[in-house]
Amino acid sequence: MNELSLADRTPSEVRALIRNGVWARPTSGLSNGYAQANLVILPQNIAYDFLLFCQRNPKPCPLLEVLDTGSPFVKQLANGADIRTDIPKYRIYRHGELSEEVATIGDYWQEDFVSFLIGCSFSFEQALLENNLPVRQIEEQCNVPMYRTNIACAPAGVFSGPVVVSMRPMTEKQAIRAVQVTSRYPSVHGAPIHFGNPAQIGISDLAHPDFGDPVPIRDGEIPVFWACGVTPQAAVMNSKPEIAITHAPGHMFITDQKDTAYSIL
Amino acid sequence: MNELSLADRTPSEVRALIRNGVWARPTSGLSNGYAQANLVILPQNIAYDFLLFCQRNPKPCPLLEVLDTGSPFVKQLANGADIRTDIPKYRIYRHGELSEEVATIGDYWQEDFVSFLIGCSFSFEQALLENNLPVRQIEEQCNVPMYRTNIACAPAGVFSGPVVVSMRPMTEKQAIRAVQVTSRYPSVHGAPIHFGNPAQIGISDLAHPDFGDPVPIRDGEIPVFWACGVTPQAAVMNSKPEIAITHAPGHMFITDQKDTAYSIL
Repeated sequence: MNELSLADRTPSEVRALIRNGVWARPTSGLSNGYAQANLVILPQNIAYDFLLFCQRNPKPCPLLEVLDTGSPFVKQLANGADIRTDIPKYRIYRHGELSEEVATIGDYWQEDFVSFLIGCSFSFEQALLENNLPVRQIEEQCNVPMYRTNIACAPAGVFSGPVVVSMRPMTEKQAIRAVQVTSRYPSVHGAPIHFGNPAQIGISDLAHPDFGDPVPIRDGEIPVFWACGVTPQAAVMNSKPEIAITHAPGHMFITDQKDTAYSIL
Repeated sequence: MNELSLADRTPSEVRALIRNGVWARPTSGLSNGYAQANLVILPQNIAYDFLLFCQRNPKPCPLLEVLDTGSPFVKQLANGADIRTDIPKYRIYRHGELSEEVATIGDYWQEDFVSFLIGCSFSFEQALLENNLPVRQIEEQCNVPMYRTNIACAPAGVFSGPVVVSMRPMTEKQAIRAVQVTSRYPSVHGAPIHFGNPAQIGISDLAHPDFGDPVPIRDGEIPVFWACGVTPQAAVMNSKPEIAITHAPGHMFITDQKDTAYSIL
């Protein structure tokens, strides 16, 4: 079984394979056309601050669904899916430090856990590709390069930190079309927040991203920067909560919602 | 001093007149082109539920800013404005019942108050007018008609209730353009949620709105329905909190943000 053989399977079929331990690898390319989501689980005592942080920073932190306190069951994004088992790999963080990677989190579950599902740029990348716009890290089969910027998020309670951006190189003409295409997806990061000179947003060296892999920028191309879903995770780690659980990078929650459902036009 | 004389004054000038008691009337038409916001103030113990309710129902409950707990000072929408004095008239609700209307709320302020500023359809109505689309209640100089629907909001904690809609009559051709124009404003209710047959969303009689005033529907026109900012207020009243404070209808908070800032295109 490989990515290709699962590209056309429904999200509920793929989640069943994940739940049963048959699929334990990254989710890129699975259930093609369906939105995937980032996961952050926090105890209730800091959930208000996190919800407020996301409200104040909607471009990097687009909340798709927040589960009821103590409930592991998804409703809007995939009715009845179990957030404790339906993701291939999880990370447990204690006091902001990675403590272990696990396949299920039933053993770690607390009655005061609140689960946040956050939008992911996978959703608009499909639209970029359909518009013949380059998505370099897909061409290069690596991770998207991500950078900390000098743009501060609006803080909320215990949460603060810089906006993290992802970068995709393209020509100016392509960048103009990319602004149009991604503006249609305000709930999955929306339009870029910068293009051109990286120093202007505090990025000193594109060849050394803070997260992910570097990608080549070809002659005639400029870097184009989008607010990135790593921003809320970085803010959570900064705040060093007693416990926090996230998906492992690339091992996302596959929803029943089509990517196109997040397009407002 | 009348509405016309304040149409071209800056928001901070108008807020100063309001703060000093010089202007105590509705804010429609003041500081033309600047967004106005609805206000809901709740104690912290139910603020998480309300924040979650708004996250789960973004079309009727578009949060523009949430102030820090206990702070009366606005930041993003109008830096330094004081939410206790900068609105012409407030309503105090106790256990879901209107208890009094007052000009300032300093005497009622509690250290655990959280203030929510919520988007208002005034922002997209300006865009409708600029597109030569009819806004009947402005023509008729009355309130927009609003109706409870049979569409349930996604509940959150103590908050639940039906989606409330506002209605504007127009021809089918105008309705198509209105979909385009208001889709550009996802954070102030966005595109309509229904048009045509009112019974389909549980409205039995357009001539008797649940809130606001009836408006004439002319030959060749259909009713077009948008999610309405009365929805969160109705949900708050349903939950009968010990105390809640809102603006008085039509007496809004005037922000420093242009209406156009809420257009994503």
